[in-house]
Amino acid sequence: MADEKLMSRLSLNQITTDQWNLQEAVDGCLRHEVPWISVWRHKIKEIGLKQSKKIIQDSGLKVSSICRGGMFPAATKKELAERIDDNKRAIEEAAELGTDTLVLVCGPSADRDIDTARKQVENGIAELVPYAKDYGVKLAIEPLHPMFAADRSVINTLEQASNIAEKHQPDEVGVIVDVYHVWWDPNLYLEIERAEGRILGFHVSDWKVPMPDMFKGRAMMGEGVIEINRMRKAVEAAGYHGPIEVEIINQALWDANPNDVLKQVKESYAKHV
Amino acid sequence: MADEKLMSRLSLNQITTDQWNLQEAVDGCLRHEVPWISVWRHKIKEIGLKQSKKIIQDSGLKVSSICRGGMFPAATKKELAERIDDNKRAIEEAAELGTDTLVLVCGPSADRDIDTARKQVENGIAELVPYAKDYGVKLAIEPLHPMFAADRSVINTLEQASNIAEKHQPDEVGVIVDVYHVWWDPNLYLEIERAEGRILGFHVSDWKVPMPDMFKGRAMMGEGVIEINRMRKAVEAAGYHGPIEVEIINQALWDANPNDVLKQVKESYAKHV
Repeated sequence: MADEKLMSRLSLNQITTDQWNLQEAVDGCLRHEVPWISVWRHKIKEIGLKQSKKIIQDSGLKVSSICRGGMFPAATKKELAERIDDNKRAIEEAAELGTDTLVLVCGPSADRDIDTARKQVENGIAELVPYAKDYGVKLAIEPLHPMFAADRSVINTLEQASNIAEKHQPDEVGVIVDVYHVWWDPNLYLEIERAEGRILGFHVSDWKVPMPDMFKGRAMMGEGVIEINRMRKAVEAAGYHGPIEVEIINQALWDANPNDVLKQVKESYAKHV
Repeated sequence: MADEKLMSRLSLNQITTDQWNLQEAVDGCLRHEVPWISVWRHKIKEIGLKQSKKIIQDSGLKVSSICRGGMFPAATKKELAERIDDNKRAIEEAAELGTDTLVLVCGPSADRDIDTARKQVENGIAELVPYAKDYGVKLAIEPLHPMFAADRSVINTLEQASNIAEKHQPDEVGVIVDVYHVWWDPNLYLEIERAEGRILGFHVSDWKVPMPDMFKGRAMMGEGVIEINRMRKAVEAAGYHGPIEVEIINQALWDANPNDVLKQVKESYAKHV
């Protein structure tokens, strides 16, 4: 079996078992001895923040992050303002649930002008920093795979994420390293080194060929081509020793028995992370 | 209508009308007044090199490139040698058909070790350069979108392609800029500038959301999010004024009447390139 230290860092990113509501996911973590959970906001919304907070507190589970803020680019000023407002709610939720990490999926461009969209992301983050700081929450920019550049995020490399993060203090803005999004990057290990002191999370899954679906096609660790263990060692060398989220967005897992999924998650985590 | 100069650069990349054999594609180009064609090797194989050469020569069409060499990484030395050999055949075919451009799709890794695969690509190209030079053929490295890093090419950015190309002379190794593969890249315009004097081709299509299929999901120019015209101006500023290949890999187009497809190609090229 894997070492205890590694297992003590395991976090269930809630989207992996999206068929569970928050109470069920928390119970699942307790049953399978998973010490951390990453909570998605649509799950908080189902039952309200107060009830979500009570479930987390009663469980004793630690929250590795809230998923997600971001989605900054917008076509109008009004929309832009609404996005900022929504991010403020996300910051409050993170603080209430006891995590200092808000994951940012930065959003797609409103039109073909990707440069402007990227600027809007940068500006949106700058606007949020003081608010997040008041709540003790760090903004964690997650670069998304370039195949999501048109529909999910215009921030597509660790280099880009660090360029934005470095405009702020390390206790204000950092980055998430998700193996699925960054494994292909020729500059990956240089950029992980550069991100020392700013890595706020490490997410794992795998890239399997052929991919069943661009969005819902992530694989269990060990089933694909990603050098997960090498990447874990790299983020550790860059000073990250926090929770490791297993985030697998996959329709087949959502159709399966979530207890079996969690069992599989633990096994492949122990073996391949 | 678009200016004549732009129309005189239009090249039909043969995969766009894959339902046509070489003779049919050539006839189609003549009928629709498309002055260039990019020939795929599986089409040459169908009828043999001699017959292919005759068809091209009789038509008076100009050949913008041969698609494709590459596929360097391999699990064994024997396989590696076979790949090099196949590339030599591709070089000979390019020379015979009267083009100086062989497009390289560099190939996926044989295992999880992507660094070694990338080194194999670099070595394979170095081995081919003298042979290609003897035939007056340039090796054109086409970076493929990072979503193809696991199954088609470990060369995924223009930066990577230029890093390899710059180890050789500009008349030996260059790069292809295909809008579909590089549009998302935050360093794109810097890298196009850097590639001045080494750009050996410009390929167009579009990225439409949602994408019907990762491989066969490219869209007609103007249907997606790519700033095609901006990119054309950038490669021109970097000194490229050669043929522009329309390369749209799309099942719906293959199921359509290829004459209608070519008509559509000309219209959207005139409007959006």
